[in-house]
Amino acid sequence: MQVRTILRILGLLVALFSMTTLPPIGVAMYYGDGGAGAFFFAFLLSLLIGFALWYPNQNQRRELKTREGFVIVVLFWVVLASVGAIPFWMPDEFQLSFTDSMFEAFSALTTTGATILTGIDELPHAYRFYRQQLQWFGGMGIIVLAVAILPLLGIGGMQLFRAETPGPMKDNKMTPRIADTAKHLWYIYLGITAACALAYWAAGMSLFNAIGHAMSTVAIGGFSTHDASLGYYDSGWVNLVAIVFLLIAGVNFALHFGAVRGRTVRGYLADPELRAFLLIQFVLMVICAVTLVLFQWHDDIGASISHGALQAVSIATTAGFTTENYAVWPVFLPVLLIFASFIGGSAGSTGGGLKVIRVLLLFRQGVRELNRLVHPKGVFSVKYGNRPLPDRVVQAVWGFFAAYALVFVCIMLAFIATGLDDYSAFGATAATLNNLGPGLGSVAVNFTDVTTAGKWVAILAMLFGRLEVFTLLVLFTPTFWRG
Amino acid sequence: MQVRTILRILGLLVALFSMTTLPPIGVAMYYGDGGAGAFFFAFLLSLLIGFALWYPNQNQRRELKTREGFVIVVLFWVVLASVGAIPFWMPDEFQLSFTDSMFEAFSALTTTGATILTGIDELPHAYRFYRQQLQWFGGMGIIVLAVAILPLLGIGGMQLFRAETPGPMKDNKMTPRIADTAKHLWYIYLGITAACALAYWAAGMSLFNAIGHAMSTVAIGGFSTHDASLGYYDSGWVNLVAIVFLLIAGVNFALHFGAVRGRTVRGYLADPELRAFLLIQFVLMVICAVTLVLFQWHDDIGASISHGALQAVSIATTAGFTTENYAVWPVFLPVLLIFASFIGGSAGSTGGGLKVIRVLLLFRQGVRELNRLVHPKGVFSVKYGNRPLPDRVVQAVWGFFAAYALVFVCIMLAFIATGLDDYSAFGATAATLNNLGPGLGSVAVNFTDVTTAGKWVAILAMLFGRLEVFTLLVLFTPTFWRG
Ligand SMILES: [K+]
Ligand SMILES: [K+]
Repeated sequence: MQVRTILRILGLLVALFSMTTLPPIGVAMYYGDGGAGAFFFAFLLSLLIGFALWYPNQNQRRELKTREGFVIVVLFWVVLASVGAIPFWMPDEFQLSFTDSMFEAFSALTTTGATILTGIDELPHAYRFYRQQLQWFGGMGIIVLAVAILPLLGIGGMQLFRAETPGPMKDNKMTPRIADTAKHLWYIYLGITAACALAYWAAGMSLFNAIGHAMSTVAIGGFSTHDASLGYYDSGWVNLVAIVFLLIAGVNFALHFGAVRGRTVRGYLADPELRAFLLIQFVLMVICAVTLVLFQWHDDIGASISHGALQAVSIATTAGFTTENYAVWPVFLPVLLIFASFIGGSAGSTGGGLKVIRVLLLFRQGVRELNRLVHPKGVFSVKYGNRPLPDRVVQAVWGFFAAYALVFVCIMLAFIATGLDDYSAFGATAATLNNLGPGLGSVAVNFTDVTTAGKWVAILAMLFGRLEVFTLLVLFTPTFWRG
Repeated sequence: MQVRTILRILGLLVALFSMTTLPPIGVAMYYGDGGAGAFFFAFLLSLLIGFALWYPNQNQRRELKTREGFVIVVLFWVVLASVGAIPFWMPDEFQLSFTDSMFEAFSALTTTGATILTGIDELPHAYRFYRQQLQWFGGMGIIVLAVAILPLLGIGGMQLFRAETPGPMKDNKMTPRIADTAKHLWYIYLGITAACALAYWAAGMSLFNAIGHAMSTVAIGGFSTHDASLGYYDSGWVNLVAIVFLLIAGVNFALHFGAVRGRTVRGYLADPELRAFLLIQFVLMVICAVTLVLFQWHDDIGASISHGALQAVSIATTAGFTTENYAVWPVFLPVLLIFASFIGGSAGSTGGGLKVIRVLLLFRQGVRELNRLVHPKGVFSVKYGNRPLPDRVVQAVWGFFAAYALVFVCIMLAFIATGLDDYSAFGATAATLNNLGPGLGSVAVNFTDVTTAGKWVAILAMLFGRLEVFTLLVLFTPTFWRG
């Protein structure tokens, strides 16, 4: 294990990440409602930490192998989220406990969007902006992770995409080409965010809120600058903008990358995962809207359609924006949407969950088995697009599913052990492991009432979800450290 | 599709099954507390139905193919359970509605053991005996199905066992050899039941109750002749007998078969599934007993150990006997046990759930993927015993898992749609799909308060579980009927 090379890279990342405290300082100075001191202190502290990690190891430049890739990816999230927690923890206008600070930062950076805060509307603008921005950077990190790094590590069948990513990704070493891919993804991400912000602004949000919500929309994060989330606006236009941009952000960014680079939409049209993703979202929107209309849940039909469609997409893509408490919706809608969050977004998007492509492959494996029962001598392969998938990829997806199920059970039991009731524990597990945000029962709106131990379970679950389970799980195997 | 041959076989089965109403008639005459008329009428009616199915088709003796095997297996359960419902539906000392009669009969024959009855202690002895006996026959049917028929049909990886079953099972046609295997399994099943009845009798039950509970114990069914289930006896000895015989009944009967035939216990010792099954049960017993002791749930430690161990094994093997309401046990015990019921018994036992061997294979696939992440160029196979498993078998297990998960989600949503709250719906789905019996929330004790629609959902779920999902699911595919 090239520990010092890893420390050098982490140091650079932390130093770079310290820059994220600068925009909130600007916001604090513009609005003059506090927070500048805390963020300035956080800037200095994180810069110092970064420097301390980097300085003694600055000449360590060995090439990294796959195994070190796992360690870096895990540390990347843990260290940056911890550093990101500093401003919440600073003694200033408001101060959170250590646990709450960590919870809020991990929830932000993993784009989970669960919160322990209430009274968000009254916070200094710097903090309201910082939370949104943290989600935005988290979303960016996830895309680079999913499109450029996980295929390299071979997590959960994502080597499937290796063929589609540019040249040097095919071999098994971390290469500088990642930086190049990351840069292009970054432009695309930035472009979509800008378009989303303009659209929210046109829909009636103030510029500050439009930018803030655009950040958490494109990150499929779900943080809002208001306690009432998007419900604050009670606007069909705002809901429509959110739906459109959540659907865009729920697409594999490798497709966006290909479209921008090749100046063609052919990639979108040919992608089975995209079709399945849009179909799922459409069906859920219709089910929710129709059910709410039939139950006369709102005074007029338009409101039911608007709330139904927004919250269907918001929960199913694992964004977690709300316009009202979906957990009290009639019959099976809450549970249906929670189940849908297990599917989540596309691989290579900012969405959470198992990812559409994996569920699609599981479904096709089920269909293959049914066909085999009827025709025991037939030969059936699981196809993706027009080509049959290598068994290795399908097996990786199955392994992923098994690990996800096992982690789900353990996390849910752990939540119950920390004092949550069974039902809320189920909701909390889905909310954190799927990086969704709002759960069911006592965690339907926020995690304020969860015990300290419960919050740490939540942090662990968010990490498991965001790191596609295996990246974290592999660190707990003896083979990994022996190998 | 050889419809007339299928009808001939069904007719014979129904006529044979009509004999199961004769022992209750004997019981009714012995105790003189009613029911004889109803059972005699049920005898005549079911004999008539059987004759009507058989007579016009008596000369139809074409050889059956795999596809017809699926239809027969499904009809076997549906038709026999429907015929078995007749005595409940007869106007006599007590009469159930059509739905309730069907629920009770399906719950009995699938060895689920959920009930809509209260006041069981006051029922005529004939009915109290009949319910137990129906479970016993159900258990027998399941073993023949799992050991002799499903491997032939290739359901959910169970072709794995095809190599172990005697000669002619290896080809793809239904053969008379099944009858021979079935006969031997029958003797073993009968022998274990007799031993269990003697043990219960020695532990203090009356002979009537000892036989009744032995029948539902060996069937891992969970019906009792008392409303309070095994709690009626409040006896450590009764609990111990139940634990021992549930563990015996939870073993693959092909192992019992091999041991009796070869007069050796070597088969038991070499079986990885048996080891995993016993390990799981042991760990759960310890967790439940220790937790109850720590929480001082009972007045003395002995009671906590006895209740804890009995209910752990009872729920985890999917028997469903209770000595007290486990659903109110402290912290995560209820949910832990419900999760354990998803694992259930061994393949080829009377237990429900996914079956230990499948969960074991899923787990090993997960471990294989972790190993592959660390050593991307290594070659790892999923082993069972000492031999690597064919990919085909592993894929079948995965397909099974995917289908189980999908059916679980659909059934749970359907339960909610019929009016159950989310939490009870989760419990009801686990209770029925795993053929467990008691659930959580409003169905923790019985299904009395479930709506009529909910009871039909439960019946469907019990069938799905008992028919290993695929046997039933395959009938809903267009390919099946085209092929
Ligand atoms: K989210
Ligand atoms: K049962």
